[in-house]
Amino acid sequence: MSEPINDIAHLGHLELYTPKLEESVRFFVNIWGMTESGRKGESVYLRGWDDYERATLKLTAAKQPGLGHFAFRCWSKQALERRVKVIEAMGAGIGWNDGDLGHGPAYVFQNPDGHRMEVYYETEWYQPPPELKPALKNQAQKFPGRGVNVRRLDHLNLLASDVSAVRKFMEDALGMRLTEQIVLDSGVEAGSWVTCCNKSYDVAIARDHTGSRGRLHHFTFAVDTREEILRAADIYLENGVFIETGPHKHAIQQTFFLYCYEPGGNRVEVANAGARLILAPDWKPIVWTETERKKGQAWGLKTVETFHTYGTPPVEHK
Amino acid sequence: MSEPINDIAHLGHLELYTPKLEESVRFFVNIWGMTESGRKGESVYLRGWDDYERATLKLTAAKQPGLGHFAFRCWSKQALERRVKVIEAMGAGIGWNDGDLGHGPAYVFQNPDGHRMEVYYETEWYQPPPELKPALKNQAQKFPGRGVNVRRLDHLNLLASDVSAVRKFMEDALGMRLTEQIVLDSGVEAGSWVTCCNKSYDVAIARDHTGSRGRLHHFTFAVDTREEILRAADIYLENGVFIETGPHKHAIQQTFFLYCYEPGGNRVEVANAGARLILAPDWKPIVWTETERKKGQAWGLKTVETFHTYGTPPVEHK
Amino acid sequence: MSEPINDIAHLGHLELYTPKLEESVRFFVNIWGMTESGRKGESVYLRGWDDYERATLKLTAAKQPGLGHFAFRCWSKQALERRVKVIEAMGAGIGWNDGDLGHGPAYVFQNPDGHRMEVYYETEWYQPPPELKPALKNQAQKFPGRGVNVRRLDHLNLLASDVSAVRKFMEDALGMRLTEQIVLDSGVEAGSWVTCCNKSYDVAIARDHTGSRGRLHHFTFAVDTREEILRAADIYLENGVFIETGPHKHAIQQTFFLYCYEPGGNRVEVANAGARLILAPDWKPIVWTETERKKGQAWGLKTVETFHTYGTPPVEHK
Amino acid sequence: MSEPINDIAHLGHLELYTPKLEESVRFFVNIWGMTESGRKGESVYLRGWDDYERATLKLTAAKQPGLGHFAFRCWSKQALERRVKVIEAMGAGIGWNDGDLGHGPAYVFQNPDGHRMEVYYETEWYQPPPELKPALKNQAQKFPGRGVNVRRLDHLNLLASDVSAVRKFMEDALGMRLTEQIVLDSGVEAGSWVTCCNKSYDVAIARDHTGSRGRLHHFTFAVDTREEILRAADIYLENGVFIETGPHKHAIQQTFFLYCYEPGGNRVEVANAGARLILAPDWKPIVWTETERKKGQAWGLKTVETFHTYGTPPVEHK
Repeated sequence: MSEPINDIAHLGHLELYTPKLEESVRFFVNIWGMTESGRKGESVYLRGWDDYERATLKLTAAKQPGLGHFAFRCWSKQALERRVKVIEAMGAGIGWNDGDLGHGPAYVFQNPDGHRMEVYYETEWYQPPPELKPALKNQAQKFPGRGVNVRRLDHLNLLASDVSAVRKFMEDALGMRLTEQIVLDSGVEAGSWVTCCNKSYDVAIARDHTGSRGRLHHFTFAVDTREEILRAADIYLENGVFIETGPHKHAIQQTFFLYCYEPGGNRVEVANAGARLILAPDWKPIVWTETERKKGQAWGLKTVETFHTYGTPPVEHK
Repeated sequence: MSEPINDIAHLGHLELYTPKLEESVRFFVNIWGMTESGRKGESVYLRGWDDYERATLKLTAAKQPGLGHFAFRCWSKQALERRVKVIEAMGAGIGWNDGDLGHGPAYVFQNPDGHRMEVYYETEWYQPPPELKPALKNQAQKFPGRGVNVRRLDHLNLLASDVSAVRKFMEDALGMRLTEQIVLDSGVEAGSWVTCCNKSYDVAIARDHTGSRGRLHHFTFAVDTREEILRAADIYLENGVFIETGPHKHAIQQTFFLYCYEPGGNRVEVANAGARLILAPDWKPIVWTETERKKGQAWGLKTVETFHTYGTPPVEHK
Repeated sequence: MSEPINDIAHLGHLELYTPKLEESVRFFVNIWGMTESGRKGESVYLRGWDDYERATLKLTAAKQPGLGHFAFRCWSKQALERRVKVIEAMGAGIGWNDGDLGHGPAYVFQNPDGHRMEVYYETEWYQPPPELKPALKNQAQKFPGRGVNVRRLDHLNLLASDVSAVRKFMEDALGMRLTEQIVLDSGVEAGSWVTCCNKSYDVAIARDHTGSRGRLHHFTFAVDTREEILRAADIYLENGVFIETGPHKHAIQQTFFLYCYEPGGNRVEVANAGARLILAPDWKPIVWTETERKKGQAWGLKTVETFHTYGTPPVEHK
Repeated sequence: MSEPINDIAHLGHLELYTPKLEESVRFFVNIWGMTESGRKGESVYLRGWDDYERATLKLTAAKQPGLGHFAFRCWSKQALERRVKVIEAMGAGIGWNDGDLGHGPAYVFQNPDGHRMEVYYETEWYQPPPELKPALKNQAQKFPGRGVNVRRLDHLNLLASDVSAVRKFMEDALGMRLTEQIVLDSGVEAGSWVTCCNKSYDVAIARDHTGSRGRLHHFTFAVDTREEILRAADIYLENGVFIETGPHKHAIQQTFFLYCYEPGGNRVEVANAGARLILAPDWKPIVWTETERKKGQAWGLKTVETFHTYGTPPVEHK
């Protein structure tokens, strides 16, 4: 194994399309406990209380739900330049933009399935207004004490017509490392989880059974404990938020999950953060077989059908 | 800021001296829930259930308690070689050894305070015997369900006669990054916390008020939640383990802590793992002033006197 | 509403039949963390760490799994005598026995479905041996720190051919109070939950779809928190214990549940204890309709089929 | 032991005097997550989300903080009449009032230390407005998801010049049962804990070292878990609420505690609810000696000085 590439620091933010902008904002602010940190044009910018950057979730009004783009912050300007060169050499580049509310110039590109991505370095550290100043100065913002209290952006899950191609792209373009995957008896790669840091994954890639391209399965914000996810389920129940599945424990990555749909129709997850870290530099990817996957989730829950079919934008399911 | 150096993957293990070897083993196995994974000479090797390496805690019989050495695993053979060159150039090197039970050749050196350290790359991934095989293959070992159930090695805290010197050494020799520190009104650095990964610290360095050199303040294994630390306190109480202080929350690093002394006399901590990660590549170290420190811990607990004076090996306190 | 009768203090113990006595003992001791507190003939007596009586679970070797009997402790000798008179007058009495290991004379009777029951007053407060003495003298026994660490007997669930008849019997014979129930569109009572104290139920009665009589659905020991039940699921997974359903939250009674089968084949549950108390003397029973029940559990989980059909002793299912 | 008297169902509500009414209301609503359920004259009525009665905390504007009165709900009208007779016979009675917002006629009396008390039966079950309707109909009100989310009134702690006299009064007048107490080497009763239900205490009585009469030490609302109390401490810290002591575990009653002062100056506690129940009808009171008390709290925390001296209304401390 070659030495790990270390140009990418972490998943920085994502842009979500929603046909119900204000309802989505209310969901993320009131139910998830996020903070609105800016508005521009048809977009509203949000953040979790422990995100250090100004915005980690950008909601943009659109006709259809789905993923606008997602972005990685690089370790340095030089690292950013190195990555851009690699991406351009791969022929995946689209070009530079002028940045956005909260961050500086970003290089735009797309993976083989058409998911739009960005890399950037310059960012705006969040400066809380007086009423949101934290008591402890090693914290980005006051703990909200509202709803689910999501802590920080954790990961996203892409639906892809060709999982292998997208996974290899994440490895080659960004130096991400594969930590777990599902390989069917046919040899087809049905799911892969890749990381650019010590978290066990920052991006998951799942096979799109509809054959569509570039769709979003879900994205995830983290809270501290499994108990907080149970409480989140209580809060969903009380507020009429449809729970698709969970709380339960995935066998893969052992994530304790809870999936619902935000008002715009996108699947969103709350998961527990961080106890499980990948510290080994020579981690050997865990390969799950078709037989193993049929056992269901860690404690025996069968995976709900929609989990295999629903994504955004929605498609006619054959 | 220059680009971060990425040669060190993580804190790998530490060697603890104990005048009561078998009692210490019983404490770590029965109370902490660790697994004995080897014995050699006067040493017993132990591991937490989520440590991927064979051994992360080596207990060695000695007249006095204290720290034998602590070791970092490098990202690759090349990274190890680069580090050795740097350390030799700094004049801190001692030389190579043949490795130990569980890992290959290590380069030995010491920091300015005389704490003995090692860097290595080759390691033995833990192979659980049949009765300790985990149900999920992405886990190193079966969850023990015994006592405190410590998960993995988290960090250690060194007492130092000169905190600045040791902190700078960790930065220069290993490329570690400073995340928080205490600077007194006099300008003296009274404590520093450095990391080599996304954890908010792997090594803490605290001023030794006795003026001694090379002592250990404590080391720490992680569990998943704060509730598990409360349960650990219940278990200590039931088993006659002296609790020095905690459970409570540090203002610095926000660690939820519980300190006790293992039978050999060394201070050991159980803390919560990982929800708080340092993902920012340009994290600005948090500097705590003397006034701020006088406020006590996060929720107001006054720091106990022994926390400032006791370390191992113990010294006559003036 | 008439004044509540207060002769019954609490559910005292139950006797479980098991065709695999020693395997069942190992399950309850090693996985559930119970303590063996006696043996007599073909029976082994067990207890949770917070049960004040010597034994709360009696395992008896038998050809078939199932419920031997369950017993309530009265508030006083006089209360016991009052209850016996009532039960005899109802024609449900069987007669006095000489008591058992851990408790004095008990009056035996049976409910309309044939479940065998006892009432008693004299009991043996548990005297822990030195190694099981608790650190705090307001606690019955040392906290075990082993497996699931079940705290105390909580409730049991009876399958009945006629739920109404059994429910009325519990009210009339023992003065128990109905707190929740399911009434089908046909008017048939499909489930009822009754209590004799501030817990929201001590006995549940569920319709036996097989038409059998006197069977056991499950019994339950309590732990403190939902997180401990998640950990119990982890421990089941690691130890090859089949999880039938859960962890999840019941809509009815809001119990956070986890069901498995012990080695003898009986369904056993771990649930969270006591935060939800019925303090109102004039609590109005909650009635769930057939439509409401079809919504599944609190967070949307569909009830597994076996939950409606499996009980002990098992019967041929039509 | 005679048969337990069962006329009292539970602690119903308490009236708190505050010199800063609106600030107190904001504290209980925004920080504790309570719901305002009425206003009348100089009083504001509040409730926890799981309290079934309309109001469990009445805040009344006053020059000094302190306890207005506290009230117990009886099991029935007949039980209420029985209690009134007993109290009148004891010479402690003051007389009937016409009730208050949320409950019917109450009989007013006072204990030997001058704390004003009430017993009542008729009450108003809380009817949530549409926006506070719970998703599950066995719950009094929607879970707020705001601040500490206190669940229900749990207990109060009275300062008394003569603990024995007040404790005996609670036993004789209300049939409460003593579960734990502190008896000094001198034979003086320094603290007692009494219950009228399965909770391990509803009222605590502590010696007032100032020699004052009729003061309040604190009252307590319950949450489900210890973790929620840690989160409460985080929320206090973020909102500038002074934490007097905790979170930590009392040796007595094993309550996990967190004490602060509400804006009016009264000490208020959040504690964990209900896992520890007193089910035994013949519970033998636990007696703690002076020596045992000197050990501090369960895990070794020394009791803070103010805990022994501060109460409301405040007095000049000699």
